[in-house]
Amino acid sequence: MEFKVNSKELEKLLTKIIPAVPTRTPMPILENFLFEIKDGKLTIHATDLEISLKSSLNVVAEENFEAVVPARLLYDVVRSLKETTILFSADSTGKLNLKTEKGSYTLSYTDPAEYPEIPSFPAEGSEDISQISINGNDLKYAFEKTAFAMSKEEMRPAMMGTLFDFEEEGLRVVATDGHRLANLLLKKINYGKVEQYIIPERAVTVLLKIFDSNDVKIFMSKTHMSFSLNDIELITRLIGQKYPDYQSVIPLENEFELKVKTRELHDAIKRMMLFSTSNTKRVKFSISNNNLEISAEDLDLGASGNENIECKYSGDSIDIGFNSAYVNDLLNHIDDEEDIIFKLHSPTKAVIVVPEKKKEDEELMMLLMPVRLNN
Amino acid sequence: MEFKVNSKELEKLLTKIIPAVPTRTPMPILENFLFEIKDGKLTIHATDLEISLKSSLNVVAEENFEAVVPARLLYDVVRSLKETTILFSADSTGKLNLKTEKGSYTLSYTDPAEYPEIPSFPAEGSEDISQISINGNDLKYAFEKTAFAMSKEEMRPAMMGTLFDFEEEGLRVVATDGHRLANLLLKKINYGKVEQYIIPERAVTVLLKIFDSNDVKIFMSKTHMSFSLNDIELITRLIGQKYPDYQSVIPLENEFELKVKTRELHDAIKRMMLFSTSNTKRVKFSISNNNLEISAEDLDLGASGNENIECKYSGDSIDIGFNSAYVNDLLNHIDDEEDIIFKLHSPTKAVIVVPEKKKEDEELMMLLMPVRLNN
Repeated sequence: MEFKVNSKELEKLLTKIIPAVPTRTPMPILENFLFEIKDGKLTIHATDLEISLKSSLNVVAEENFEAVVPARLLYDVVRSLKETTILFSADSTGKLNLKTEKGSYTLSYTDPAEYPEIPSFPAEGSEDISQISINGNDLKYAFEKTAFAMSKEEMRPAMMGTLFDFEEEGLRVVATDGHRLANLLLKKINYGKVEQYIIPERAVTVLLKIFDSNDVKIFMSKTHMSFSLNDIELITRLIGQKYPDYQSVIPLENEFELKVKTRELHDAIKRMMLFSTSNTKRVKFSISNNNLEISAEDLDLGASGNENIECKYSGDSIDIGFNSAYVNDLLNHIDDEEDIIFKLHSPTKAVIVVPEKKKEDEELMMLLMPVRLNN
Repeated sequence: MEFKVNSKELEKLLTKIIPAVPTRTPMPILENFLFEIKDGKLTIHATDLEISLKSSLNVVAEENFEAVVPARLLYDVVRSLKETTILFSADSTGKLNLKTEKGSYTLSYTDPAEYPEIPSFPAEGSEDISQISINGNDLKYAFEKTAFAMSKEEMRPAMMGTLFDFEEEGLRVVATDGHRLANLLLKKINYGKVEQYIIPERAVTVLLKIFDSNDVKIFMSKTHMSFSLNDIELITRLIGQKYPDYQSVIPLENEFELKVKTRELHDAIKRMMLFSTSNTKRVKFSISNNNLEISAEDLDLGASGNENIECKYSGDSIDIGFNSAYVNDLLNHIDDEEDIIFKLHSPTKAVIVVPEKKKEDEELMMLLMPVRLNN
């Protein structure tokens, strides 16, 4: 078996696929690429059993070939080469050789039969498959605004993913860990059916690196979802759980509105984080007529801080505590140039956070659970 | 006690001093700054008992004051502030307050009596003190070329530092770990005495961040060395050991010369490192008439690589092994644009490595011990 390929083209291909190779795994075979040459087309797969990536490239090859090849070593060798032609050749003893003008590099390959079955997606047109096309930038934006709120706790598997909630009004993308919730409605996406899919965290992370301004073709079955763009296909297992009824936790009667400059609050919160270093990471918001005082203290260190921030506030004076890291996370995902609105009711009730300026074709809403104040 | 200071000026000062604060230490008090206000001058010290840094700033203060203040917290608070005036005030209960236009931050301070004595340097003019002034860029260059070769092994304390070898010809800066040696003679530095000082690794690392084009005033005693520039003073303990007689290991009869393009060799070595992953990290140089073949293999992975590099070579054909990481380290510290010369004698004898182009006022020489080849 022999084929030729341009080193930079192959590097580009491998760069796309390597994110699916797990860095630590109890199954060493997953640290390999599956190489497939069929009718002059080289297809490379990688999987961690949760997500899989594949992409293809036309090569000059006479024979078909399949092999399992050490992913990291091959990737490192190929990207350390300047632009050149690589002649691949495989012998029957399990050696794969890469030859360039000046060098020769040999890797061991193994039998593809040992490689786990790539979670394959049923053919287009099959009965239980739904399909939609969404612009990559919209998906990227939706993940960027919401992914931070996904849970890391294995006890609540449904929350360890991001919800695609197809509604009549559009696609609602939701993530929550029970302490905070991010909720973005993309109104312009019209799917026509009411369905829910939960995409695991790892798929979200990898997709964030892949999406660009091109349209993404999405196929959905009950168990898997596939995303195709720019010659890459990512297939992910879906989280087969019921997503919690997040609509029921969104309070309706939060009548007090606090409006504040996002950047000013964000800068102050970062300083308060230096003092809210105890377990609870608590920062206190003391809100009264057009003044927001935020404060934090670390009793162990004997250190404390407080700042006053100008605001507009329409309600009763209130003291309410938050986890400062969660407030900071949230502000990291709101445009710093805009004003931000906190809708509150009491020190124990979830607080709604929205950007003041609404965009025409989206609705962004965050939810933040308060933490108890001692006094 | 009260004083005022501009936040950005204080930040600049703290940024200079914080490198001496240890990140992990069995003595928590070293995680503090020593604050000293005397006659309107604020001096801040930090030490890890090996090195100490101090710098000063004029402030508006009526009283003298001394306190031990949490270094990291103070630094983080000050650098998180925009440019503003900070009013410091200390009360008798051990609270240090920083007040700005909008915020107020309180830290605990403790009694300076508990702070270890800063390794103080005897006054200028004292009998056992030598003194020299060297340009910061020259010192920086010398450390950059040599520091990588210092030993990390605590069994050989003398080698865990960089040698300042004042000779008649100039200042020779030397570092070695027994496997490789870096040796730079700065001819234009005229000290007039023949003396040796060993500067510990941590001082070298911190000084590399401080040096700029300004002259550095250096004081040397038998036990300590002090470097002053730009209002900073670094005092370091010296390593009180005899430095090994490195001159005696430099071979004199290495008659075979290999000349090769540094960048070409460096690129190839980086690729070979992917294959020389076993314990010995061995890379083999097979040198014959105007051809250098370098090769490496990992028997466990069943992977290997080799490349041919154009060279000029005048000697007998020779196979010689090196630790690829050491070759790479060495090449990282030689100008990639120049050619490089390896002077060899046999597969078991130290190899001299020098840049082909000599500079007028310096002599740079590296030494590399070969590793044994199996065949």
